[in-house]
Amino acid sequence: MSAGRLIGVGVGPGDPELMTLKAMRALGEADVIVHFAKAGCASHSRGIVARHLRPGVTELPLYYPVTTELPKECDGYRDALRDFYDAAAAKIAGQLDAGRIVAVICEGDPLFYGSYMHLHARLAPRYATEIVAGVTGMSGCWSAAGMPIAQGDDVFTVLPATLPEGELARRLSEADAAVVMKVGRHLPKLRRALARSGRLPRAVYVERGTMAEEKMIPLAAKDDDEAPYFAVVLVPGWQQRPGAEK
Amino acid sequence: MSAGRLIGVGVGPGDPELMTLKAMRALGEADVIVHFAKAGCASHSRGIVARHLRPGVTELPLYYPVTTELPKECDGYRDALRDFYDAAAAKIAGQLDAGRIVAVICEGDPLFYGSYMHLHARLAPRYATEIVAGVTGMSGCWSAAGMPIAQGDDVFTVLPATLPEGELARRLSEADAAVVMKVGRHLPKLRRALARSGRLPRAVYVERGTMAEEKMIPLAAKDDDEAPYFAVVLVPGWQQRPGAEK
Repeated sequence: MSAGRLIGVGVGPGDPELMTLKAMRALGEADVIVHFAKAGCASHSRGIVARHLRPGVTELPLYYPVTTELPKECDGYRDALRDFYDAAAAKIAGQLDAGRIVAVICEGDPLFYGSYMHLHARLAPRYATEIVAGVTGMSGCWSAAGMPIAQGDDVFTVLPATLPEGELARRLSEADAAVVMKVGRHLPKLRRALARSGRLPRAVYVERGTMAEEKMIPLAAKDDDEAPYFAVVLVPGWQQRPGAEK
Repeated sequence: MSAGRLIGVGVGPGDPELMTLKAMRALGEADVIVHFAKAGCASHSRGIVARHLRPGVTELPLYYPVTTELPKECDGYRDALRDFYDAAAAKIAGQLDAGRIVAVICEGDPLFYGSYMHLHARLAPRYATEIVAGVTGMSGCWSAAGMPIAQGDDVFTVLPATLPEGELARRLSEADAAVVMKVGRHLPKLRRALARSGRLPRAVYVERGTMAEEKMIPLAAKDDDEAPYFAVVLVPGWQQRPGAEK
């Protein structure tokens, strides 16, 4: 029997209509559907594709061993994740050795800040793989906000809110346009960094872009510091919105 | 009669299968399909959607007044583009005033370095608009290359190759992962900047990612400096590919 095939399938930012035709095809041909989730929680990516799963298809959920992301410098955290991805890759390898087509469904795009790439790194040297690019979470957010993000010769940067305040401020000052991810408990620090860099007036806070529970508000108008981990802040490069040119 | 609706439709990086279900729906409901093209050339975005156009649908092609992008500091260039977008917006406004649904089809994502945003800025204050997010060209390129681009707390940056060499080198040094766009005639300078920043060994050159004519090669192995305007160079943040973790 020949070995199967691994497909990393981007399923987009949340709205099931933002799945691609190619993702639909991959769901249709897969023997096994793999999805990541927090222990005790439903998988977000599975929620996005739920209506398109073949009845009776085999599902292989992978539950993260930790519930909060910690700095990668924490040895215990890093080791736990490494063991988790090793074990997950071994399970998937068993399916591939049996000749099956395995689709790992991923929110957004599989190779852009996604967990899939940890499986890809372990399995791509040994098995046939295919990547189905997806609409990223950040595209979903600026599209939901109707906000042009970058144009022409703009320098665009994606920053994690985990950076120190001074570094955030410096990098925000140097970019024409930016998206800050992993906001969560870092929101007060991020506000200060945006203020120091002069970017606070054009910053927009977005939660669950393209989903039913979508929230968006100019950050300067948001009067609390509550934010989930996956909230993002958009800093558009387009200077005079929405009526003008650079 | 009530006014129509403007839809900015991302049609993805080139492979027609990377269109979203929502883009398909927008094509189905639009009365008028608008696309940008160079004078004398077929529109790339129209090529992507061609098989899905309704027979007899009205098409409104918009031909750029210039064939080569120039620095925005050139007054003549900027004025010609401004007049072009003003006239295009006026034509579309006429269709919207007649109650029609107008879909502007855009390669990649409409609000990420796209021409659509110039129409959006002019028309969104006066008409109902909707954005259909799309898979970006850069996602198409790293997916076609099977190359994880950014993960964890990586800082990711998009740079235009038009920047001066020293600035390119500095910004490449400061980013964990980068995509350089608009390569074209700037390739020799970009090579030098990548070498100065230590990033040349992991840089990958990609042309027409996800399309039939796709080309990709480690930049260090490319033995000429021929590159079209839309070629990109990927600098992945994932340090030891494809077998290892950061």
